[in-house]
Amino acid sequence: MHLPKGFRFAGVSAGIKSRAGAKDVALIVSEKPCTAAGVYTTNQIVAAPVVLSRSRTPSNRLRGIVVNSGNANACTGVQGDRDAAEMTRLAAEGLQASISGEMAQDDFLVMSTGIIGRQLPMEKIRTGIERAIGELGSSEAHFLNACDGIMTTDAFRKIADRKAWSSQGNHALVGMCKGAGMIGPKMATMLAIVVTDAPLDRYQAQRMLQAAANRSFNCISVEGHMSTNDSLVLLATSPTEQTPALSDADAAIFEAELTELCIELAKKIPDDGEGATHLIEIQIRGANTDADADAIARSIALSNLVKTAITGGDPNWGRIVSAAGYAGVPIQPKRTALKINGISLFDAGEPLPFDAKTVSSAIRAQKLTLIELQVGLGPGTATHWTTDLNSEYVRFNSEYTT
Amino acid sequence: MHLPKGFRFAGVSAGIKSRAGAKDVALIVSEKPCTAAGVYTTNQIVAAPVVLSRSRTPSNRLRGIVVNSGNANACTGVQGDRDAAEMTRLAAEGLQASISGEMAQDDFLVMSTGIIGRQLPMEKIRTGIERAIGELGSSEAHFLNACDGIMTTDAFRKIADRKAWSSQGNHALVGMCKGAGMIGPKMATMLAIVVTDAPLDRYQAQRMLQAAANRSFNCISVEGHMSTNDSLVLLATSPTEQTPALSDADAAIFEAELTELCIELAKKIPDDGEGATHLIEIQIRGANTDADADAIARSIALSNLVKTAITGGDPNWGRIVSAAGYAGVPIQPKRTALKINGISLFDAGEPLPFDAKTVSSAIRAQKLTLIELQVGLGPGTATHWTTDLNSEYVRFNSEYTT
Repeated sequence: MHLPKGFRFAGVSAGIKSRAGAKDVALIVSEKPCTAAGVYTTNQIVAAPVVLSRSRTPSNRLRGIVVNSGNANACTGVQGDRDAAEMTRLAAEGLQASISGEMAQDDFLVMSTGIIGRQLPMEKIRTGIERAIGELGSSEAHFLNACDGIMTTDAFRKIADRKAWSSQGNHALVGMCKGAGMIGPKMATMLAIVVTDAPLDRYQAQRMLQAAANRSFNCISVEGHMSTNDSLVLLATSPTEQTPALSDADAAIFEAELTELCIELAKKIPDDGEGATHLIEIQIRGANTDADADAIARSIALSNLVKTAITGGDPNWGRIVSAAGYAGVPIQPKRTALKINGISLFDAGEPLPFDAKTVSSAIRAQKLTLIELQVGLGPGTATHWTTDLNSEYVRFNSEYTT
Repeated sequence: MHLPKGFRFAGVSAGIKSRAGAKDVALIVSEKPCTAAGVYTTNQIVAAPVVLSRSRTPSNRLRGIVVNSGNANACTGVQGDRDAAEMTRLAAEGLQASISGEMAQDDFLVMSTGIIGRQLPMEKIRTGIERAIGELGSSEAHFLNACDGIMTTDAFRKIADRKAWSSQGNHALVGMCKGAGMIGPKMATMLAIVVTDAPLDRYQAQRMLQAAANRSFNCISVEGHMSTNDSLVLLATSPTEQTPALSDADAAIFEAELTELCIELAKKIPDDGEGATHLIEIQIRGANTDADADAIARSIALSNLVKTAITGGDPNWGRIVSAAGYAGVPIQPKRTALKINGISLFDAGEPLPFDAKTVSSAIRAQKLTLIELQVGLGPGTATHWTTDLNSEYVRFNSEYTT
């Protein structure tokens, strides 16, 4: 992995999660004040850490992000607000000694993920933050420890890295995210952090991050439940006279890489949906606008009947077409056409003859199921990713307990 | 049961369903031209029988409804349109001999439910309609045969009856519906037929039926998939000089009874959701408007995380409150309050201490789970009904095959 220069990482176990030794506090620190941008859940029921972090981005003097997993600090009232602020205060105070420069709690962001409606165990969090400060480092192992610290029910780490070229040289981008339950659309119980050593102005960073989110994290779902805690944060090097913010031409290249990185990260979330056996990619073409295509993709992605059909390897295309029909935006039924894994099943409003066993085998043979739907009107396109729905998901979410 | 005067019913097996002897053709016939009103799916992908029936209601000269189950005649192109019309032609021709008065195919409605995207087996349908005509009768047994003929994966019959008083005397109302998969919101793979001997004008009937649907069939969901075939039809006696259409005062009483009947029928559908172990009633209070309350109830009803929590007897109220938060309409988080089965869990934006085992036992102890959510803004209210989500549902819908 190519890690960006100037950042340190840590992940430790503080005993918030019940599993002994599970990492549940992570810390990402910039050696100098850095640029930060953030995109957050639009749920009106919003967790305390989101309210706090949202008020502190975009920033041109950020020093770090403190994260806990195992408890979302959501629906926790006034005490929750206090605890979120306290987490940033603990990070700022603790780091003051070990990292050069003045820093205040306002220079930190906070993220929490896990169960809703329980007060944070602040003694454990305090100990965890202290320990994380002591273990900060800039190696890949340190980065991976931080990844582990943000995970909840994830079955695997979700990381990606990439290089972006600019006239100032090469810049590293690395990202980590956690997903699993309560995934979107429009974000998820999803935390994602992208760190780069490209020099970016804070408003430039904010604009690029929102654009990347619209093409990635806002296009994934597991069960359609928008969480109280979704947060996507980008940390970048602060521009200086020697290394000014990327020019418009360089920024366009950077934005393309950032978007690809975010798509790569975002797809890992439904790929690891609780119990999912299929990652479903839904490509819509021919809507009046991209926004209309997005609504159609979302309607299909959220249909339990579509999801269970894919689970069963069943080319029940009627469920897909009818989900497009109630998306609330225009389609032209007589010019609608559907392919599953490249096989045409429906065209110009008429069912096509096909061998159900062949299509079923094609669905069963691979984890990715590709749904391509043409709705016959205009130039609008969208791509969404979701999971199938199987008994394992139900078992898991029936038993994940209050 | 009190059956309305002047109507005959039949249900027969025509071999459309694979299970031997399963009834799959139903016929409801009015002895004289009657009033008919209809409310249909708003899906743009709409089945041929819906297109046809929609064009023939409201009507003041209807003679009957022909229904088949086992095949939805949806996404069947031009052939499907022809077959739907042919079903009404077969009914009109066959009945001409046995019922007095002139009748044309335009005087019949058609409904189909079952698998999408397969052409109707018209030879079987023809035989089924002939046999149904031969078996028409006005007893409760005949009515129940018709109920059986419209069912698909329903585990039990869904019928209701009631009396409505008017200044002209007592009127009988009976209703049957079929539900199970692809249930709403905004209708479902849902067929419902209500028959009354109250004299109603066709526009009066249409207005009352739409109002009743908005409070009943439009407030239920199993998995949120709006079907291509949803149809709700009301047949009523045609007014004459001797028995004029109900007065406004009488119509108000009748509409209240009709609405209650539709609610009673509609609730049976999620109560019989494929594999459902809980019927969930969601009562929203305090939204700005009834329409806002409806959006909130719908958002909660469609959340797989809410549904799986109820399956597991888990008072995971954070999932409910957060589903309200992304409904896309205003709520006041600081005045939001939640009860499950009468037990307060969340109030004024703060979690309340509660004994998880007590609430869990309360959920497990009965089939009905009552969710009461106050969102702290205005006078808007709504009530929705849905099912839990369990492994049986997933197994069922993974295996119900193309």
